Amino acid sequence: MADLFWPGDERAGSHFSAEDFVGAMLAVEEAWLGAGIDALVDAEQLALDAEAGGNPVIPLVRLLREQAPDAHRGLTSQDVVDSALMRMSASAVATLRRDLRRVVTRLAALAAEHRDTPMVARTLTQHAVPTTFGFRVTAWLTAVLDADDDLARLTFPDQLGGAAGTRAATVELGVEVPAGVPRWHTTRAPVTRLGDALVGCTDACARIANDVVTMSRPEIGELSEGTGGGSSTMPGKANPVLSVLVRRAALTTPQLAATLHLAAAHQVDDRADGGWHAEWAPLRDLVRRTLVAASQTVELVAGLQVHVDRMAATLAAAGDSVLAEQRSMSDDPSPTYLGDATAYVDAVVARAHHHLEEKR
Amino acid sequence: MADLFWPGDERAGSHFSAEDFVGAMLAVEEAWLGAGIDALVDAEQLALDAEAGGNPVIPLVRLLREQAPDAHRGLTSQDVVDSALMRMSASAVATLRRDLRRVVTRLAALAAEHRDTPMVARTLTQHAVPTTFGFRVTAWLTAVLDADDDLARLTFPDQLGGAAGTRAATVELGVEVPAGVPRWHTTRAPVTRLGDALVGCTDACARIANDVVTMSRPEIGELSEGTGGGSSTMPGKANPVLSVLVRRAALTTPQLAATLHLAAAHQVDDRADGGWHAEWAPLRDLVRRTLVAASQTVELVAGLQVHVDRMAATLAAAGDSVLAEQRSMSDDPSPTYLGDATAYVDAVVARAHHHLEEKR
Amino acid sequence: MADLFWPGDERAGSHFSAEDFVGAMLAVEEAWLGAGIDALVDAEQLALDAEAGGNPVIPLVRLLREQAPDAHRGLTSQDVVDSALMRMSASAVATLRRDLRRVVTRLAALAAEHRDTPMVARTLTQHAVPTTFGFRVTAWLTAVLDADDDLARLTFPDQLGGAAGTRAATVELGVEVPAGVPRWHTTRAPVTRLGDALVGCTDACARIANDVVTMSRPEIGELSEGTGGGSSTMPGKANPVLSVLVRRAALTTPQLAATLHLAAAHQVDDRADGGWHAEWAPLRDLVRRTLVAASQTVELVAGLQVHVDRMAATLAAAGDSVLAEQRSMSDDPSPTYLGDATAYVDAVVARAHHHLEEKR
Amino acid sequence: MADLFWPGDERAGSHFSAEDFVGAMLAVEEAWLGAGIDALVDAEQLALDAEAGGNPVIPLVRLLREQAPDAHRGLTSQDVVDSALMRMSASAVATLRRDLRRVVTRLAALAAEHRDTPMVARTLTQHAVPTTFGFRVTAWLTAVLDADDDLARLTFPDQLGGAAGTRAATVELGVEVPAGVPRWHTTRAPVTRLGDALVGCTDACARIANDVVTMSRPEIGELSEGTGGGSSTMPGKANPVLSVLVRRAALTTPQLAATLHLAAAHQVDDRADGGWHAEWAPLRDLVRRTLVAASQTVELVAGLQVHVDRMAATLAAAGDSVLAEQRSMSDDPSPTYLGDATAYVDAVVARAHHHLEEKR
Repeated sequence: MADLFWPGDERAGSHFSAEDFVGAMLAVEEAWLGAGIDALVDAEQLALDAEAGGNPVIPLVRLLREQAPDAHRGLTSQDVVDSALMRMSASAVATLRRDLRRVVTRLAALAAEHRDTPMVARTLTQHAVPTTFGFRVTAWLTAVLDADDDLARLTFPDQLGGAAGTRAATVELGVEVPAGVPRWHTTRAPVTRLGDALVGCTDACARIANDVVTMSRPEIGELSEGTGGGSSTMPGKANPVLSVLVRRAALTTPQLAATLHLAAAHQVDDRADGGWHAEWAPLRDLVRRTLVAASQTVELVAGLQVHVDRMAATLAAAGDSVLAEQRSMSDDPSPTYLGDATAYVDAVVARAHHHLEEKR
Repeated sequence: MADLFWPGDERAGSHFSAEDFVGAMLAVEEAWLGAGIDALVDAEQLALDAEAGGNPVIPLVRLLREQAPDAHRGLTSQDVVDSALMRMSASAVATLRRDLRRVVTRLAALAAEHRDTPMVARTLTQHAVPTTFGFRVTAWLTAVLDADDDLARLTFPDQLGGAAGTRAATVELGVEVPAGVPRWHTTRAPVTRLGDALVGCTDACARIANDVVTMSRPEIGELSEGTGGGSSTMPGKANPVLSVLVRRAALTTPQLAATLHLAAAHQVDDRADGGWHAEWAPLRDLVRRTLVAASQTVELVAGLQVHVDRMAATLAAAGDSVLAEQRSMSDDPSPTYLGDATAYVDAVVARAHHHLEEKR
Repeated sequence: MADLFWPGDERAGSHFSAEDFVGAMLAVEEAWLGAGIDALVDAEQLALDAEAGGNPVIPLVRLLREQAPDAHRGLTSQDVVDSALMRMSASAVATLRRDLRRVVTRLAALAAEHRDTPMVARTLTQHAVPTTFGFRVTAWLTAVLDADDDLARLTFPDQLGGAAGTRAATVELGVEVPAGVPRWHTTRAPVTRLGDALVGCTDACARIANDVVTMSRPEIGELSEGTGGGSSTMPGKANPVLSVLVRRAALTTPQLAATLHLAAAHQVDDRADGGWHAEWAPLRDLVRRTLVAASQTVELVAGLQVHVDRMAATLAAAGDSVLAEQRSMSDDPSPTYLGDATAYVDAVVARAHHHLEEKR
Repeated sequence: MADLFWPGDERAGSHFSAEDFVGAMLAVEEAWLGAGIDALVDAEQLALDAEAGGNPVIPLVRLLREQAPDAHRGLTSQDVVDSALMRMSASAVATLRRDLRRVVTRLAALAAEHRDTPMVARTLTQHAVPTTFGFRVTAWLTAVLDADDDLARLTFPDQLGGAAGTRAATVELGVEVPAGVPRWHTTRAPVTRLGDALVGCTDACARIANDVVTMSRPEIGELSEGTGGGSSTMPGKANPVLSVLVRRAALTTPQLAATLHLAAAHQVDDRADGGWHAEWAPLRDLVRRTLVAASQTVELVAGLQVHVDRMAATLAAAGDSVLAEQRSMSDDPSPTYLGDATAYVDAVVARAHHHLEEKR
């Protein structure tokens, strides 16, 4: 899979592809049946047949019953689609978290390495006070750790309720399912929590990318991407393409998660009249774009070039103007005075190591 | 093309498909070169090669220059992508407007047919006053006419500026292009206006679908879809599937258009650092979903069944309670008094006919 | 406070009012100074003076230093605003959770009371299978419990970093603050998590309101609001106004939370150039609208009238058609067969009681 | 009016204030009655009384009828609110367009003045080719002209339909209103078009502000705001506060316009059950924030300082690297070769002058 409208899409692999969806729905049906079903499913044809009933389960069941007449007995379409979405999500989030671990590992090393590398802090785009590059990296690291903490809390429940949640057919069939297992046909926290957590990831990736596009401007030149992207008309030009593509993602994902909330707020009756159907494609896009952005961020931070000389030169050129804060405290500030910046670097790096040990 | 996550997607045909995009980019390059280019382009491979430079034009130009060494001279990637997007959009909007014409034609007939069909008006879900079904249809018709008026105003400009809009290479090449032709690399009104107009279309389609899902509830029963969708577990159940799918679309499109505006508000420098790249996929999804919703609405209104008897029965059962408004005006209101509802139906139907004649 | 553009706004009390904001900023400054400051602050004047520096702290500090010359030493504007926002948020969330507890308490009672009250389940607007009203209420209850679980996880950290997060002045001053205390000037998870959790609340409230507006349509008549709202022109008409106003909120909050994420994804440098300033008003609106919606939901569920007779009549009228699911399982289904619906009611009610005991 | 959470809010004056809303509703009622009404309306009390019926007209009518017993006869609440919103909008848009004219006037002069001022063009943050600052200003100017073109097309219709649009009471009263006057209780193009056009304005203002925050970074230093904003802790620091606040606005407005579309897509029956109520506050916020951003942009461009020396120095330092595009066309490019940039400046300035003459 690759998407001409979303360069880099292939990084998301087959997560939430049509084949992945078919496979997940089949797995749900097989688990329910307690037996394998030897069905050949053409995903394209299934998609074409899905519109008549509004979802892909209806034509899928027709196919399955040719092989296994008892397939799907007691289930409703939404049981199958919701369970499949959650299983695909669990797998995608596992992949995503592996990439975030890589980012955390690299950023922790980068922060430690540049714990004492002096540079100028910037606030509202203007020079503020002295800082270190390691301190700046703690912001990137914090963003990613916070995002991964939210992913770690997610759960991916199966759905099982039958036609309207009451499991009337299930009980009739004599299948025993604990009554307390939640039914969430019309209460979509599993979906909205997932969406919100994914946006947290693109927020974090963009946090890094924003600094890279800014600091790799030629006039600043304190960072650059390992291998910049080319130009169709200017040979030799090196653009911060990975950062640009990560920023792109973060401009789109909050609205996708908002769509999931709007769908949740539309739920009515025992199964909804549009709010459910609106979830699938936005969730797919949100998952894949987050996977792509995280993978690009792995590559971005792995290849990142830190131009310590430029950092030092900028700080030196800023001179006295960046001592205003300390001067307001003391008549004799030291130009290299960094507050507790380096101690904070140590603390955040420790949090990262703790996180890497615990969140496996 | 069909999309398992968006049943009905195939209704959008090849508009904004990968092949459509490749074809449009090729057409732009050929028009610029003034000659055909006999290149074989593998869209999937192009997509895979697009990430390195951040857009698909860079690998495309490599391919083209094997056949036509002068291809793309004087252009920048964005000239090609923007022009291709606009050409694809022009074609998609033409298709969309043909479907809206079909909706207008059908609704005008429906409004005229039911100009005098009595039913109860509902406000804030409760019975209000007597009205006619034809009057209700004028709301649907107005929504579609307004949406099509906005589509009619759109323009689809080519983009031509070279590396940073100054046409330095173009002038060097001796190609004459009028200086006044707008450059919009970082001013995206052509894109945001298109996005806003498309949302207007799904707003209008949802306006109709909302009434159908409501009025086809069994307790109301005043409307039903021509052929309802089936259920995976309840044989015989007929769901208002087309309406449900149209409503689905309208829950997602406003956020896609908002994304286009956010991208526009991100423009900086002479070509942007993420805001441009964020446009392509959301625009594609917005166009295709609108096409699908419009096509489903054509089918919805074509097959719509109007249950005049249920309308009459509900109005009769409402009895005196729906005469409160008139009674507050006069001691002797007539139970069938309809204000100027029927004259208004005539006026809106006349607007529709005028629209159909003029907007071809 | 009351807002002519958002009827019911006064239910949010003084949370996130101008006075609340001034008070919270003062409290932060006093806590930092370790002493009270006897300053008279005119919130309106402060707002007028805020634009020049881009935030209200700069004019506030001018006022404070007339009384306490050492006020604010070592802090940056963002330390004060962020800490104040979090303190106001903590207070607002406490209020919100008290209202959600009331909703939970009432819904648990309602579910238990109507554990066995038969009604027809509806899916995609159409009659599906028999269910009970208590079972339906478990969906409402689950939505609210899930939302409150997310609120319970929130933290409201203070912010303390000085000009650019390094605490240079703080250290200069000799104030000891643990190095490990997080700085989140440019990593906004505390804000985005709050925003997401608040949207979860309006999702849940709308889940209830959607059913009420639907089921209180006169043709269905299974529910009605305790006291409906009036009409300006139709005496006697009773509209489901509380539900309508709750639904209104849920249409707006997802986009407000998306704005908070977009602001988070805009963070750059050591303090941002617009992304921070964009948070305050959307967060205020999101908090207040959620408080209003929750308070209206308390009233809605407290006064809700359940028309058991209409439920029974509709189910009876639906007759055989709602037995399709069971009939596909067994040749001899029972018309009142409810699966494990009532056992599930017990389980969700137990979850509610557990929640009420634990989450105090 | 001033808003501590939105510094600069007072620039929007009384547009869409509570008093403005009351005044507009009164004007609508008086126009309908054909006589003045000497009523004293307490906006705060009206807001408090609005919730019971869901909108402010019901308590307003009670007040009015104490003075004029025939007030509001034949109208519905929505007639009054919608007409009032449109009247307030017309006035706000007139104010907005006056500010945009000021921006256009200033930018046209700036473009002309710097028609030939050399600077380096930047694409994807990197140096590209030579350009002029006047050419860059044409992008700003185009954005504002496009936005104002969209404002110029707006219409602000009154609403008049009575309880459910049929004008039953109106006709009963013997009032003659042309049947063809559109009713738009449930078709909201007048609102969504307004919202979309307003977002176009903040897009345009942000287009300018983005360049200013970037180019006023100390390392670039090609632009600076006339008077920068101060810091609470660093005396002497000058922040690009106007630009920062303009960017803030543009992060929030697209989601407000999306909310208006979502409300439009929620319309149902003859008057809606939440979709209408959700419009008022988002529209108010959208209008006021756009007014504030435009006013700040007037001040921003009026005071903008252009550092021609820095522009020249950067271009000189870039040296040969910015000639890649021309070199790919010709072996002997000129380092100052600017394509048709200056001719394009003339063309856009001419468009601006034409616009200023025509759009008054």
